[in-house]
Amino acid sequence: MLTEDKLLGSIEAGGTKFVCAVAGDDFNIIDQETFKTTNPAETMGKTIAFFQKFNVASIGIGSFGPIGIKENRPDYGFITKTPKVGWSDFDFVGSLKAAINVPVFFTTDVNSSAYGEYQFGGVPKEETLVYFTIGTGVGAGVIQGGSFVGGRSHPEMGHILLRKHPDDINFPGVCRFHGDCLEGLASGPSLAARTGIKGEDIADDDPVWEIIAYYLAQAAWSATLDFRPDKIIFGGSVSSRPGLLAKTRQQFKLMNNDYLTVPALDDYIVHPAIENNGSATYGDFALAMFALRNAEKSDERA
Amino acid sequence: MLTEDKLLGSIEAGGTKFVCAVAGDDFNIIDQETFKTTNPAETMGKTIAFFQKFNVASIGIGSFGPIGIKENRPDYGFITKTPKVGWSDFDFVGSLKAAINVPVFFTTDVNSSAYGEYQFGGVPKEETLVYFTIGTGVGAGVIQGGSFVGGRSHPEMGHILLRKHPDDINFPGVCRFHGDCLEGLASGPSLAARTGIKGEDIADDDPVWEIIAYYLAQAAWSATLDFRPDKIIFGGSVSSRPGLLAKTRQQFKLMNNDYLTVPALDDYIVHPAIENNGSATYGDFALAMFALRNAEKSDERA
Repeated sequence: MLTEDKLLGSIEAGGTKFVCAVAGDDFNIIDQETFKTTNPAETMGKTIAFFQKFNVASIGIGSFGPIGIKENRPDYGFITKTPKVGWSDFDFVGSLKAAINVPVFFTTDVNSSAYGEYQFGGVPKEETLVYFTIGTGVGAGVIQGGSFVGGRSHPEMGHILLRKHPDDINFPGVCRFHGDCLEGLASGPSLAARTGIKGEDIADDDPVWEIIAYYLAQAAWSATLDFRPDKIIFGGSVSSRPGLLAKTRQQFKLMNNDYLTVPALDDYIVHPAIENNGSATYGDFALAMFALRNAEKSDERA
Repeated sequence: MLTEDKLLGSIEAGGTKFVCAVAGDDFNIIDQETFKTTNPAETMGKTIAFFQKFNVASIGIGSFGPIGIKENRPDYGFITKTPKVGWSDFDFVGSLKAAINVPVFFTTDVNSSAYGEYQFGGVPKEETLVYFTIGTGVGAGVIQGGSFVGGRSHPEMGHILLRKHPDDINFPGVCRFHGDCLEGLASGPSLAARTGIKGEDIADDDPVWEIIAYYLAQAAWSATLDFRPDKIIFGGSVSSRPGLLAKTRQQFKLMNNDYLTVPALDDYIVHPAIENNGSATYGDFALAMFALRNAEKSDERA
């Protein structure tokens, strides 16, 4: 258990920014710092300096990926093969623990967000949920029976293949590995590549949103068939566009064609319950608590 | 535990035939009967008559779907919405138990097959595996950590959307719900619909197999991204075509484009280890044993 003078830590390690935070056992944020993701040395230096100001009991980390999350594998704790310069094969957990040797839970940013929504989003504990982030990158985390889905590693649903929208046939997509996979077609950078306008400056009534909705509906349809979840949550900057999820639900309904019984679509394809992109940070705190309890159990057995 | 005079039962309930079998606790088949799937009354009558010849301790059922597999839901034990005449909303488990009141485990045929391969296919117990059947219908079962993946119900991966092969653009597919989903494009009936020749009579070097391989590779790619399994098994009559999985592996390699590290493809995209389509029957026996142990545990608690 968390003793009175100790705090839980969260690292939301994104490809563009890091958010570090600490909380007590009521999970209320006591302090928080956001900085740009630059090279590993500088970024980890700032991260370590933040946590050294506090008496931290354990840290939950939700990182951009791909990463190694299986403790029995040699790449555990590493950022593995990323196009982000300097970060490939970087020992994230090792670098952190060399300075701050506390129990950590290391997972993907989307797994952290899924866990935050699962623990604090008013979701019944027996429910299965899928959390997609649609932003600079695209990914998903899945929780069933309180555990993350994923065998050898974490899901990589950002790279599923899609059927192209008829008005998008000639767009090659922006994924450097697969061109027009989900991430290649629905991420923030795909909007700018198609329109020449930055995603946030595109009008709400631009026809590109119908195209994006068609792709998000395919992501939701795929998740429905794979996991039969109770809820599919779309977070990330692209998903927050007003009206986009309503369009996504319409397309999803056409795809299902009354084949599967799913919850009412307004309760099924939803925005995060936790506001201000807070799902990952709260998920990290809960995972930090989980790591702390596990470490205490190991100590008791030893 | 199974006492010496009692047997485990298996019902492999397919859309075209039922296979009923019994085995001792060494899982060797003692007797087996196969009959055509006609209407529920006749088919269940034959099923019950078979098991009444033996002293059965418990029965594992792997059924065609969609079915209700969650014990806390009102549709548990039912075949739900199927195009198969007479079988929609049929109370499979209730009808069986009214005659033979033993513990049962009710799941999909593909979950049974996945479980058979997991228990008896030489798979290490910590591995995650996906079992696809590509036959009259198309579906998949997934096991992670020894449990089935699936929240509200079982996966329905037969209905994922695919990217069409350039030589298959004008084929509308045969799925009555979705046209050209995976089942619509890669099932046995799709072969006859495309070529006018029954699937089993099409030559091994017919170009249609390149098209099917492209779709199976998409199924494998989707399963890889969703579940990060250690093994993807393709069973069913279509999958057994010589050379088809080799073509599938080639297409899969192109799709991955070295993005994810997966096992050597010859060990990753494979045929069932259990021969003669036996995976489901052996899985049913293991699930029957599981149901028996669960019932005994409940008795002990009561």
